[in-house]
Amino acid sequence: MQAVELIRKKRDGATLSQEEIAWFVTEYTRGNIPDYQASAWLMAIFWRGMNSRETTDLTMAMMQSGDELRVRDIISPVVDKHSSGGVGDKVTLALAPIVAACGVAVGKMTGRGLGHTGGTVDKLESISGCRVALSPAEFTRILTTHNIVLASQSDNLAPADGKLYALRDVTGTIESIPLIAASIMSKKLAIGASHLLLDVKVGSGAFMKTLADARALAQTMVDIGQLSGLHAVAAITAMEQPLGHAIGNALEMAEAIAVLRGSGPPDITALCYHEARELLLMTGAASSQSDAEQRVKQAVQSGAALAKLAEVIAAQGGDARQIEHPDLLPAAPVRVMLPAQRGGYIAAIQAEQMGMASMRLGAGRFKKGDPIDHRTGFILQAKIGDYCRAGAPLVEIHARSEDEIEAIRASLLACYTWSDAPVSAGPLIYDTIRP
Amino acid sequence: MQAVELIRKKRDGATLSQEEIAWFVTEYTRGNIPDYQASAWLMAIFWRGMNSRETTDLTMAMMQSGDELRVRDIISPVVDKHSSGGVGDKVTLALAPIVAACGVAVGKMTGRGLGHTGGTVDKLESISGCRVALSPAEFTRILTTHNIVLASQSDNLAPADGKLYALRDVTGTIESIPLIAASIMSKKLAIGASHLLLDVKVGSGAFMKTLADARALAQTMVDIGQLSGLHAVAAITAMEQPLGHAIGNALEMAEAIAVLRGSGPPDITALCYHEARELLLMTGAASSQSDAEQRVKQAVQSGAALAKLAEVIAAQGGDARQIEHPDLLPAAPVRVMLPAQRGGYIAAIQAEQMGMASMRLGAGRFKKGDPIDHRTGFILQAKIGDYCRAGAPLVEIHARSEDEIEAIRASLLACYTWSDAPVSAGPLIYDTIRP
Repeated sequence: MQAVELIRKKRDGATLSQEEIAWFVTEYTRGNIPDYQASAWLMAIFWRGMNSRETTDLTMAMMQSGDELRVRDIISPVVDKHSSGGVGDKVTLALAPIVAACGVAVGKMTGRGLGHTGGTVDKLESISGCRVALSPAEFTRILTTHNIVLASQSDNLAPADGKLYALRDVTGTIESIPLIAASIMSKKLAIGASHLLLDVKVGSGAFMKTLADARALAQTMVDIGQLSGLHAVAAITAMEQPLGHAIGNALEMAEAIAVLRGSGPPDITALCYHEARELLLMTGAASSQSDAEQRVKQAVQSGAALAKLAEVIAAQGGDARQIEHPDLLPAAPVRVMLPAQRGGYIAAIQAEQMGMASMRLGAGRFKKGDPIDHRTGFILQAKIGDYCRAGAPLVEIHARSEDEIEAIRASLLACYTWSDAPVSAGPLIYDTIRP
Repeated sequence: MQAVELIRKKRDGATLSQEEIAWFVTEYTRGNIPDYQASAWLMAIFWRGMNSRETTDLTMAMMQSGDELRVRDIISPVVDKHSSGGVGDKVTLALAPIVAACGVAVGKMTGRGLGHTGGTVDKLESISGCRVALSPAEFTRILTTHNIVLASQSDNLAPADGKLYALRDVTGTIESIPLIAASIMSKKLAIGASHLLLDVKVGSGAFMKTLADARALAQTMVDIGQLSGLHAVAAITAMEQPLGHAIGNALEMAEAIAVLRGSGPPDITALCYHEARELLLMTGAASSQSDAEQRVKQAVQSGAALAKLAEVIAAQGGDARQIEHPDLLPAAPVRVMLPAQRGGYIAAIQAEQMGMASMRLGAGRFKKGDPIDHRTGFILQAKIGDYCRAGAPLVEIHARSEDEIEAIRASLLACYTWSDAPVSAGPLIYDTIRP
């Protein structure tokens, strides 16, 4: 096979065979196909697209480039969850213990935050002593003992995806549905759960800006699951404003604990419950929507879900007292409440800009490997549709210094759009795509 | 400026500015933009195309990457000619002396053959002592003294084109009209004649397989000329079968001499005359088609055109006796006449395959830098539409050995398609595109 022939074939709109796709990915990962041929191939894929079979073959080829963990060989069913990324998205931290408390195993590997979006691993590390870099033996022991494990992603998970993603980033080939879907699903297939809940975010703060794109990505990933033997369901959910009230690692951990106590903000609570119900239904742990709803409510109201979070944190070396007493979580030295500068209805809160502002407080990373400060961030006092009087509390800033607050004050206030007329927030959950 | 932003801009179908195109080409040529970004950019151009203004800006940027010869500053008007490449295309060797004999200066820089198509420089070098690598001083002296010069191309002519072409070759981005047009025209603009005749070949033996593509390429190049101040005219001509009867360097030189004697094959003679008339008209040396026709015929019938070829060959150190006595040209030791294996009308002669067969006799190069044998090649005894009896002479092979003839015999015969019913050859000249 010749790389240039496969570039020409896709360029001319033809369908690539499984052998051709596997060959290209394997030889590229081995360094036998140069970057300049891979980037031309990626642009041809960007242009011509890939059908579900091709996208699945690309996903499988990337998955097979590294370790295959096959979590489902440890325990089955075992669920995994992925969010396409947003601001204030602490769903996994509450969802995983709810599902585990309902008797369904959760073997989760998760990433660090980069840019304006946070990462579950960073939020977990706001708990003293909590270890996320687990050996395979530790991962297996904790999962089998506690029915839940929340680990960081192995370095050798789908390395072809890492190499291709770095190339896509500098060659204008990021925003392609099949390439995005294959990138996400290659790592999910390498982890090897039996069931997967995908949360595809849509809106100004999300990677997918339109409902049509989000729906196409969700459908493509569900299709890849079906063609590769992974039962995947995708929820399409709003990222028009930050999710919940908290942005920042320890602040989001505390908010996840509030959800498990039944006192979380309505949007994040509703989303956690929706995704938990889907996971119970797809694994057969619940027999109907109402059965699933009952079990989720029961797990929270009984305290079983909160206890499950404390249990897994303790198993991973963390200080479980911080789960029972979130006031023990690390706190920023300076807190300032920003008042609304005008009265009116909140019409929009720019999630992406707000995520960027939190990065400047130390809560996120500008580049891979940057250190972060787990204590800093924001607590929103009002969300889209709420009425604020001028001078009323708008957003609380948790920071290391007054100077850092001053440095972001203007850009933070600029995240808000106001309206004199009442505004209603759009739907939180647009659709759920099942195989 | 960021390379990735220009990739994304073209990928999304936008028009690039002059500054953006010049920056990309300059930085790529300097090695500041890596191949993997250039190949993605080229694929985006392949996909989205370029308008005439962008294509002209690309051409100018590539032209400015190296030497600008400005032949028109030596003498003006001065004409140049380019063929998009074919088999048996020795037009330049007859056309240039005809035009020079009509009083219009010809400052020609020309390339070597590669693959199945020959190069004018190689054909010139079949004459003993003929030098084509001329210093700028020699080029100027010969052009001003003799009104004609036939030199090889300077190494530093549009080096950006050389670098981009090598990348396109391995990334599936060759067959793009704006990229092909810019590649050809960048070298023509760097040479800097005042008038240019473009011969765009179309057909199974040509790079452009369809009339629509050939017309688009011709129009694009004429447009680039117009936007860059070079008066260019494009003839769209047939390459469904080899041009004339001879294929191979010394054999084609002899056929060009026959054209200048008025005894050349009809197709090559008609094409030379057509292009000569166009050049006389566009430079204003002739006042009308009939005036142009008269002057061309007169140049040949008077012997002035043949004398002009002998004159320029002598000026470049070549043995002019070989022009007057073509039997003195180097001859292959073995000649074998292949008979027709069946009777019938010739329906097709695969020019590309025949060019490949001549390469295997040593007449062409498989890769740049390969040595060639000027003596070898073919003389076609019949062309499309001709009737041959079984056993009648079909094609004469000029080779170094019987073994080499045996090695190509089958593939040479396979170039012919036969018909029992009469066949008529298609038109030789499809159209002429003027600004």
